[in-house]
Amino acid sequence: MGKGKFLPCHSVVTQRNINIQPLSLIITRPQTAARLANTDPSSFTTMRIKFPILAIFLEVVIIILFGLFVKYDTVDRRQVYPLFQDVHVMIFVGFGFLMTFLKKYGFSSVGINFLVAALGLQWGILLQGFWHMHSNEIHINIGSMINADFSTAAVLISFGAVLGRTSPIQMLIMAIFEITIFACNEHLVVSVLQATDTGASMTIHAFGAYFGLAVARVIYRPALKNGHKNEGSVYNSDMFAMIGTLFLWLFWPSFNSAIAATADAQQRAIINTYFALAAGTLTAFATSILVEGRGKLDMVHIQNATLAGGVAVGSCADLNILPFGAMLIGSTAGFISVAGFKYLTPFFASKLKIQDTCGVHNLHGIPGLLGGIASIIAAALQVENNLSTGMQAAALGCSIAIALVGGAFTGLILHLPFWEQPPDQNCYDDSVYWEVPLEEPSYESSFHLPREPQQAQH
Amino acid sequence: MGKGKFLPCHSVVTQRNINIQPLSLIITRPQTAARLANTDPSSFTTMRIKFPILAIFLEVVIIILFGLFVKYDTVDRRQVYPLFQDVHVMIFVGFGFLMTFLKKYGFSSVGINFLVAALGLQWGILLQGFWHMHSNEIHINIGSMINADFSTAAVLISFGAVLGRTSPIQMLIMAIFEITIFACNEHLVVSVLQATDTGASMTIHAFGAYFGLAVARVIYRPALKNGHKNEGSVYNSDMFAMIGTLFLWLFWPSFNSAIAATADAQQRAIINTYFALAAGTLTAFATSILVEGRGKLDMVHIQNATLAGGVAVGSCADLNILPFGAMLIGSTAGFISVAGFKYLTPFFASKLKIQDTCGVHNLHGIPGLLGGIASIIAAALQVENNLSTGMQAAALGCSIAIALVGGAFTGLILHLPFWEQPPDQNCYDDSVYWEVPLEEPSYESSFHLPREPQQAQH
Amino acid sequence: MGKGKFLPCHSVVTQRNINIQPLSLIITRPQTAARLANTDPSSFTTMRIKFPILAIFLEVVIIILFGLFVKYDTVDRRQVYPLFQDVHVMIFVGFGFLMTFLKKYGFSSVGINFLVAALGLQWGILLQGFWHMHSNEIHINIGSMINADFSTAAVLISFGAVLGRTSPIQMLIMAIFEITIFACNEHLVVSVLQATDTGASMTIHAFGAYFGLAVARVIYRPALKNGHKNEGSVYNSDMFAMIGTLFLWLFWPSFNSAIAATADAQQRAIINTYFALAAGTLTAFATSILVEGRGKLDMVHIQNATLAGGVAVGSCADLNILPFGAMLIGSTAGFISVAGFKYLTPFFASKLKIQDTCGVHNLHGIPGLLGGIASIIAAALQVENNLSTGMQAAALGCSIAIALVGGAFTGLILHLPFWEQPPDQNCYDDSVYWEVPLEEPSYESSFHLPREPQQAQH
Repeated sequence: MGKGKFLPCHSVVTQRNINIQPLSLIITRPQTAARLANTDPSSFTTMRIKFPILAIFLEVVIIILFGLFVKYDTVDRRQVYPLFQDVHVMIFVGFGFLMTFLKKYGFSSVGINFLVAALGLQWGILLQGFWHMHSNEIHINIGSMINADFSTAAVLISFGAVLGRTSPIQMLIMAIFEITIFACNEHLVVSVLQATDTGASMTIHAFGAYFGLAVARVIYRPALKNGHKNEGSVYNSDMFAMIGTLFLWLFWPSFNSAIAATADAQQRAIINTYFALAAGTLTAFATSILVEGRGKLDMVHIQNATLAGGVAVGSCADLNILPFGAMLIGSTAGFISVAGFKYLTPFFASKLKIQDTCGVHNLHGIPGLLGGIASIIAAALQVENNLSTGMQAAALGCSIAIALVGGAFTGLILHLPFWEQPPDQNCYDDSVYWEVPLEEPSYESSFHLPREPQQAQH
Repeated sequence: MGKGKFLPCHSVVTQRNINIQPLSLIITRPQTAARLANTDPSSFTTMRIKFPILAIFLEVVIIILFGLFVKYDTVDRRQVYPLFQDVHVMIFVGFGFLMTFLKKYGFSSVGINFLVAALGLQWGILLQGFWHMHSNEIHINIGSMINADFSTAAVLISFGAVLGRTSPIQMLIMAIFEITIFACNEHLVVSVLQATDTGASMTIHAFGAYFGLAVARVIYRPALKNGHKNEGSVYNSDMFAMIGTLFLWLFWPSFNSAIAATADAQQRAIINTYFALAAGTLTAFATSILVEGRGKLDMVHIQNATLAGGVAVGSCADLNILPFGAMLIGSTAGFISVAGFKYLTPFFASKLKIQDTCGVHNLHGIPGLLGGIASIIAAALQVENNLSTGMQAAALGCSIAIALVGGAFTGLILHLPFWEQPPDQNCYDDSVYWEVPLEEPSYESSFHLPREPQQAQH
Repeated sequence: MGKGKFLPCHSVVTQRNINIQPLSLIITRPQTAARLANTDPSSFTTMRIKFPILAIFLEVVIIILFGLFVKYDTVDRRQVYPLFQDVHVMIFVGFGFLMTFLKKYGFSSVGINFLVAALGLQWGILLQGFWHMHSNEIHINIGSMINADFSTAAVLISFGAVLGRTSPIQMLIMAIFEITIFACNEHLVVSVLQATDTGASMTIHAFGAYFGLAVARVIYRPALKNGHKNEGSVYNSDMFAMIGTLFLWLFWPSFNSAIAATADAQQRAIINTYFALAAGTLTAFATSILVEGRGKLDMVHIQNATLAGGVAVGSCADLNILPFGAMLIGSTAGFISVAGFKYLTPFFASKLKIQDTCGVHNLHGIPGLLGGIASIIAAALQVENNLSTGMQAAALGCSIAIALVGGAFTGLILHLPFWEQPPDQNCYDDSVYWEVPLEEPSYESSFHLPREPQQAQH
């Protein structure tokens, strides 16, 4: 151990390119990470310059574009404001806290989620707006804000796939590229193909998941193929993650109904999502115990697979599939999602060289696919006569194809060596990019002080 | 201590029926619990079978019944959707986190609350719907979703009484029985007696509390009569519980007004609940310091008694009792609730053999009674001329009577020995039913590492 | 250390007036604090009497005044109920959790925030109502509840300035005085000067900040001029604080638009605030890394400065400043706020003898000023023709002047020695006023038990 504390300083110098030491030797305690940053001038001085320059440059560009194009819409859309606020909470609290399950990555999970979403919604307004200009003006109302939040959801899903192995700089770049590509695919699916995807199973969930997986594949880190010491959770970090899970679960009916066309369609979307989630939650709990060798519930499944029903019912949410139809879709999704976490994620990591930190493939990828397939079946059953099997299939196909190609392309850019990527041994560690408080005895830890037996007396 | 680590393996074999060792000898560290589960094949293999079978069986039955009976309603009830969402947050975040105060039971509190509510709302739709069928069809809209969430509230209140001493399997069974009985009592009170109970002081709060207390009495555990090592809170678990408290407190006006008949009644219900809660909060703080020997605030009181005003004003919420009337009810409830925690709960545990983990009797039981009595007085004062003193009294009486009988009956079923009940020494311990993360040094605990002095330098 | 444990008992006796020992000698562990309280009879017995008497006295007075004056309004304002609920969450969850960043002060931050807001909203209804009586009656509707919540916001901002150095008794007194003065200033600004301040940059944010800073100046503690051991955060306390940050950030558009006059103005206020916050968040992140010597993000900045855009755009929120105008205001605020935390707060503490615990000057003070100036510029540019530069300037001037004078006056009252102020060495420590749980090994800390190596085996 005494020797160990010198190793990392050395390792930082070398491992930028490739990490030659076995992980067992790598010290990942925050103190070490902090000291590393100190002893490695290149690391922080460049971050101190690059990040602010990029962020401020992007904000300046956005403000100029807003000044040139964006005006208030005169249409009164305040009736959807409560739905917007539900979606808004999902984006910032839901996605943000869902990713706080990692023991040493809470600041980054909720903080970088915050940063990326704040950038993404501004960029989303512009990119979505460019497709619907009136006399060279983008007219925005509360409906536009819902769509802007939606476009950030795709990025945040992709963020979950690469969580802990990327820098804030990389995330800003990914947000710009992904939202640009997302807006094109959305236009293709909705306006060109005229497919139905009210809850965005295909255009947001499947798209975001496969985009993120493609990025993860390109920035694959061989040194982490046996996992990483920081990748686990602790008790309180799992509790924080449940805050994200529940707010996502609760407001999902708003997400799936926010842009529904008619009053009937909107109420159907709310009801279908409500029951799909409830049914999926029961099957997720049941499957979690079933697949766990020791017959216990696994927090990873409860935090994620309980939401799969909301993803899967998305494309059909506003269709006349009847509540029991929604429940069938939801319970299937809950089952498949848990199975994915148990069997597919390890396979992806070992065989496909895709490290999926949050298992977004199981929460958004497969359930998104399932949602697209459900919409094809719904079209085949003619639950609504303006639905085309071909168009739904085309929408699903191009969403995934564009996501994979776009993700791979974006991944190549993110793979460039000068984006302040975290060293392998400091992955999943806040202290690389955050001032982490030095711990003093808090109430939580005071138990361990030597004189505790006396305390027990009163 | 070295000897201690062998004891539990032995104890598990014996204590299923009765626990013969003094608690001082029982080891309750999660690691131990985990090892126990490992060394006790019966425990987890059967759980692994029984829980999934029951959960999936219930979901299949529900989906079939939905397929047979449940259709969309054509009435547009989207105007109550924001109220529904507030209630929805109360059920899953409010009740869920309120119960996370136990130091080792956060996963179960928020997780099993999640499971039970997801099952309960589906079952509630059916059981409430059976009372209002149109040509053998149950027509559901957003209003039905509010009532379904309401029916789960009763179960979650009862859950609080037996928290930590029951298995997930028992909770699924309790949910099915309690909601069935709840729906009958609700029909009796609202449709037959035509009593007023807008905020459901009687039909949800008093009913849920006394149902849970009856169950707790039947499944009483003598071995825990001197309390349990795990029953306390830690600093962070008390913080998590405040999340539940605040979201319950904030959205209570929505809970009490969601099903109000007229616009006036609804606005009155919102205003009355707002002031009843505010007044009750002040008296709860004052009483907490008053009853604590050392003149300090007790988190248990702040987490619970501050909500009593919302319970107590429920039955009268939409009546013309004037804001100051609501404040009188609220401040009385805040005072009584704290007194109940201080004096009644110990009495219940020692004399009546009722172990009430969350003190639901003080938060829902007595304040629910108070609410019923307030509605009787309101009827006597003729604040509204269609109110009948007799009917209000009958509603209160039958709600409590049916709750006690129904709870006792359900308790007998839950007392059967094959529901995977937790061993006495593993009560209030997540690790019996959950994979609990093995702790590594997180930032929170890194302070205690030997080399901390060096850390202090930077 | 053995010696240390006797020191505090002595110190408590002496330090009420002045603390003569170097902080390094002062022991601030909760156990110590708890024992102190025990060994100092005066401390808790008087608290046990004074607090309940004051709280109950205030509640009785309020109920009597409500009985005399407050009636239901017949106007149906349910359309603003969702906006009210958003503001309500900001007041209790937003402000409450934002202040939980201190390692040992979470109970007080969220708990006393809860108490003060519950008192404040009742007092606010009366004080604001007295300015708009109809035939000696105060008619309240949901709009009045929004304004009542607003009036508590000013107090909670001031609370942030003195957090950790005051007693619950002092906070009740401050709430009564501040809301009284706030209501007068609000009347002056809105009704007399007829200035525009929809989002209350001046009347709530600047007012609350400078009121709190004036109080902080008067109750300055020389013994804490070199800081305090408890003043830092721990990992989980910073995570809890992010809950407050995000809910404030998300619902700020509701805060700034809740009392907008017309549909157009309201939708503009929502849109402008949405973009001001998003732009301010990017600049806050960029500036945080820029000013931190080590090129890392500082949680204090992320928790606070990301909100400055919402404060600064407040006064102009409903004006026709165009989205890019809102973004300019927001990004300026994000930059200035971080700079304030970095350079101004230390200067205030050392030179001006103003200890600003939460840095409210940087989050509410300067951005509030900026908001007022922005409204003056907007008036000069005649973005709306009924705006007067003079009146806006007068509104800003009198808000700050009245806040400073009122705060100084209130501070003198709070400085009286019999309000159960915490001893210097127990500042920022819950255990002075709260029963703090004795820690047992929780999952979070179980790792550190001596026998941990054995645990590691399974």
